[in-house]
Amino acid sequence: MRTALDAMGGDYAPSEIIKGAVEALDILPPEDSILLVGPQDTLENELKALGGPFDRIVVEHAEQAIGMDESPVEALRQKPRSSISRMVEAMREGRADAFVSAGNTGAVVAAAQMALRTLRGVRRAGISIIVPTFHGPVVVIDVGANIHAKPLHLAQYGLMASVYSQRVLGTKSPRVGLMSIGSEDAKGTDLVRETRQLLRSAPINFCGNAEGRDLFNGNFDVIVCDGFVGNVVLKVIEGMGEGMVRMLADELTSFAPDMISKLKPIVSKLQEQHDYSSYGGAPLLGIDGIGIISHGSSKARAIKNALKASSRFAGQKVNEAIESALAPAGELHT
Amino acid sequence: MRTALDAMGGDYAPSEIIKGAVEALDILPPEDSILLVGPQDTLENELKALGGPFDRIVVEHAEQAIGMDESPVEALRQKPRSSISRMVEAMREGRADAFVSAGNTGAVVAAAQMALRTLRGVRRAGISIIVPTFHGPVVVIDVGANIHAKPLHLAQYGLMASVYSQRVLGTKSPRVGLMSIGSEDAKGTDLVRETRQLLRSAPINFCGNAEGRDLFNGNFDVIVCDGFVGNVVLKVIEGMGEGMVRMLADELTSFAPDMISKLKPIVSKLQEQHDYSSYGGAPLLGIDGIGIISHGSSKARAIKNALKASSRFAGQKVNEAIESALAPAGELHT
Repeated sequence: MRTALDAMGGDYAPSEIIKGAVEALDILPPEDSILLVGPQDTLENELKALGGPFDRIVVEHAEQAIGMDESPVEALRQKPRSSISRMVEAMREGRADAFVSAGNTGAVVAAAQMALRTLRGVRRAGISIIVPTFHGPVVVIDVGANIHAKPLHLAQYGLMASVYSQRVLGTKSPRVGLMSIGSEDAKGTDLVRETRQLLRSAPINFCGNAEGRDLFNGNFDVIVCDGFVGNVVLKVIEGMGEGMVRMLADELTSFAPDMISKLKPIVSKLQEQHDYSSYGGAPLLGIDGIGIISHGSSKARAIKNALKASSRFAGQKVNEAIESALAPAGELHT
Repeated sequence: MRTALDAMGGDYAPSEIIKGAVEALDILPPEDSILLVGPQDTLENELKALGGPFDRIVVEHAEQAIGMDESPVEALRQKPRSSISRMVEAMREGRADAFVSAGNTGAVVAAAQMALRTLRGVRRAGISIIVPTFHGPVVVIDVGANIHAKPLHLAQYGLMASVYSQRVLGTKSPRVGLMSIGSEDAKGTDLVRETRQLLRSAPINFCGNAEGRDLFNGNFDVIVCDGFVGNVVLKVIEGMGEGMVRMLADELTSFAPDMISKLKPIVSKLQEQHDYSSYGGAPLLGIDGIGIISHGSSKARAIKNALKASSRFAGQKVNEAIESALAPAGELHT
């Protein structure tokens, strides 16, 4: 397969993105290739500096780039020749089978939904991420695609992430929870209460409200929330993971320096568990195609892993399963 | 001073609550006393079992109790003689100077706002909690008092928590951030955008949007969010702290058992940093009085610390400072 990679997306674009593409060549199946999207001259020079050109990296020219801080809709309108737009067009026109971008999330999501459309019956795409925990991976959806979510959107997220958990993580009958502030029906916002009603009627193993701590106690395999809450939670986990590891390292340095060498592997393992690079990117579920959203701060390693993810991720199977699960889902089908 | 303690509030009420009250006698100033609110017979028996009666613990009879899962407003209407209602009435009638409750948060907040009213100009009370981090304490407001927050409520929270940070933590010109999903003005919900405008005009050191990770990187002293987001974040921190400590202990047991004894103090310190018991309770800022909300899962130690907090917390000074800061705060004053 061929993955279109947004060379201009992310805090470290284009250098780290291109470096990641080149490094990915070593781990991708030999039949896979990369469509590198961005300003031709810049990209070719960077590739040359890295020992290129490479026959499995094809450059797709896009003269414009959308900044991380730009307003998605305006930026897409003002920059029709941006790397993000070119990337999804390449997919629509069949020149790529998947995309990977660490760029402006709002713009990538909007461009993908416009160019590729959503799956049959799906109202909104959602970003699902795998949070590694002490009790195994938990899928959280949505972490930033849709911050004005409606009950139907969230209910469909629950169904899509349940399918994703089954197909990609092999979870049997994933336990789906709805993020709220208490396990009781009485608690939560109107959005939560209305979503809960829809989830109850969905063909999934819905287990009721989840709380923040349920992310780490093994009670759920999938947790549904709107993109604002999910994005905040994701960054809290990220910051706290870094903070605790730093604190631990600091404590060791001052109180048990002799143990550092022996504990390094353990601390590294702790660190790995909360490092985006280790799980590369997050699939944008619900679009009619395969799209991987990478963290804005992605460096070469994260991009390499995202490209691997796009190649390994059985996106087509997941998408077919979502459509067939949605078809008979009564209220959830639109 | 005398603190009214809701003996029937929390997952471990009444035993652990009463145990905490008795243990608090050792650390409270000799002139302080506790008004223990709940069913007289039950309370007196529990106190006797603990070696009572104690002259500094006075029992206030309240025959009803509001469950943790009950709908706040209905429960308060249906149970006028609940420990929560009696507790705030005791304050209104001058028989207590502060209250501590680990009970149904929504009911405690509603009862306190009704019985004690809010401070001059304050629209809604907010629960502010201190999150200990690698870079020092960060005040997060609101963590569950108000899940249908309006821009004015959030802006006032920012001002109240700024005063709290100054007076209680001694922070000079606290850096106040508004929790959002990106540092850019373009990002965030309508609530975030409208709140940001109000915070810009507030007499505080407003530093713009904060992201989840900013809780742990020392960029802010105060972070404002609505009660839904704050409550989810708080429980994520709680669950992740427990999870990482458990994982670390597990790794050590299997790979470096010889180090456990030597590392115990370090792990305990890590644990302490994310243990509610260590900072007892969270003040309900904005009510015309002193109220401490404790975690629903509080055991004796947490209650003891909450009682200490209610006694040490310069609530009156903070409240006066909030009113005088709010008075000239233009748009923020109502």
